[in-house]
Amino acid sequence: MINKLSAPFCDYKSRVESALDKLLPVANSGPVHLMEAMRYASLDGGKRIRAMLVYAAGQTVDHDMNDLDPAACAVELIHAYSLVHDDLPAMDNDTLRRGKPTCHIAYDEATGILVGDGLQSLAFETLAGHSSVNLRPEKQLQMIKLLANAAGHAGMVGGQARDMAAQGRKLTLDQLTELHLGKTGALIKASVLLGALSGEGSNPADIEALDEYATRIGLAFQIIDDVLDEEADTKTLGKNSGADRTLSKATFPATIGIEKSRRMARHCQAQALSALDNVRADTQILKAIADLVVGRKH
Amino acid sequence: MINKLSAPFCDYKSRVESALDKLLPVANSGPVHLMEAMRYASLDGGKRIRAMLVYAAGQTVDHDMNDLDPAACAVELIHAYSLVHDDLPAMDNDTLRRGKPTCHIAYDEATGILVGDGLQSLAFETLAGHSSVNLRPEKQLQMIKLLANAAGHAGMVGGQARDMAAQGRKLTLDQLTELHLGKTGALIKASVLLGALSGEGSNPADIEALDEYATRIGLAFQIIDDVLDEEADTKTLGKNSGADRTLSKATFPATIGIEKSRRMARHCQAQALSALDNVRADTQILKAIADLVVGRKH
Repeated sequence: MINKLSAPFCDYKSRVESALDKLLPVANSGPVHLMEAMRYASLDGGKRIRAMLVYAAGQTVDHDMNDLDPAACAVELIHAYSLVHDDLPAMDNDTLRRGKPTCHIAYDEATGILVGDGLQSLAFETLAGHSSVNLRPEKQLQMIKLLANAAGHAGMVGGQARDMAAQGRKLTLDQLTELHLGKTGALIKASVLLGALSGEGSNPADIEALDEYATRIGLAFQIIDDVLDEEADTKTLGKNSGADRTLSKATFPATIGIEKSRRMARHCQAQALSALDNVRADTQILKAIADLVVGRKH
Repeated sequence: MINKLSAPFCDYKSRVESALDKLLPVANSGPVHLMEAMRYASLDGGKRIRAMLVYAAGQTVDHDMNDLDPAACAVELIHAYSLVHDDLPAMDNDTLRRGKPTCHIAYDEATGILVGDGLQSLAFETLAGHSSVNLRPEKQLQMIKLLANAAGHAGMVGGQARDMAAQGRKLTLDQLTELHLGKTGALIKASVLLGALSGEGSNPADIEALDEYATRIGLAFQIIDDVLDEEADTKTLGKNSGADRTLSKATFPATIGIEKSRRMARHCQAQALSALDNVRADTQILKAIADLVVGRKH
């Protein structure tokens, strides 16, 4: 199914790359090194899973592609900012990301901090600045609130803080799951919901089913991330493999072993697919993304 | 005039403190150390000039105080996040802020990064989450876009990047002014405009005059900041005095001398007051804030 559907994936990926390219500041719109570094950290890389989820969820409920671009860009900007900050020396101290030096290595640490800060602002500016006859301003406010909540202390930032605090400590599976529902899950879930909300007419039952789908694949995504960090090589990953173990991170393999982790990811995938049965629309692409998330090699 | 008007200033200050206190996460809503640190970095301190400007501008054009709280909190949250990140070792490496240890000293560097990130998200969540019969959603979107733009690469973050790049270099007065129109000016200007936009019915000519007022006092504020860093003592400032000189920062005193700097601040103040003559409302409190900005001792 992945092969048959590779065309929409590629379309989504090139579509968000191009939208981000137009959105990001050009070198002469501010301090040159900052503008360059913002582009360096956000373009030419990444799997764009979050943007794909925006587009796929939005298309599932029949929204216009042009109305999906702002949310697709916004989630990728938030994701890119979080990677730049997570890679900083005071956080995970990583030197390689998406196959190239991390932002603070390619530029400097102060620039890394500011790039992340600027990308976060740009995400909200993008969502607030979109104007469309298909989208009521009330809905846009709801989307901004949802993204801010998913990105902040109750979501991604909170999960990252739990992750830092858990270094060298043994967590229970419940604690680890809670950590990752924030750290990675919140933004993945937001991506699906933002896609579904980027227009009018989607019904509450569909949104609820998509919410459940998103929670499950968010968790599956992180479990596979942890497994790949253990099993894949640096070249395939595009980031340093084994980094979790080096930092004594709390991971699924460290908590329940590799095999149980893989089984848990497949279980999440099955739950995600089953949630889609409740959506009254063609969910083929969302199903394929669930397969991609669990079957990926990097 | 300042003494006669000290009551509204105090009211504004305690009002925003109380609104922030209600808004900020409590310890059991996420990782305890992150929630504590977010409160530590945002409460019990600061002059709250930005919140004052929101309230004063909003009251000038007759908006409801309850509709001004979200913008007052949002600008203070953005300001607090920027201070936490600016104080980090890779940036200004400051140990003292608002009379207490900086966030990364009181907690740790990773927490400092995450606190700033979370406070920024919370600012946008706050603006997007407000609901009032006095405020159309279109206006709220305009406010979010304005704040995101002022906070990001085209405003505060861009100014901060210019500031970092200027360390040890001699700037012209024009370059220095451009730097500070971003670094400090953009958020101060946004504060005035957000106050004016937090309701319906304000007329474009008034907004334009308030915009000019805001630009001028934003610049005056930064000039006085630079002067105080040279002249005041650490205890009065609540942060380490002489820090600019230690870091070879590009400042107004370093560029044009202390006396010319003071004269330039007074000139900006006069321009700000003159702009207010074009506002068709009682601008007494905004005038008093201009006096406060230039006359302050810390």
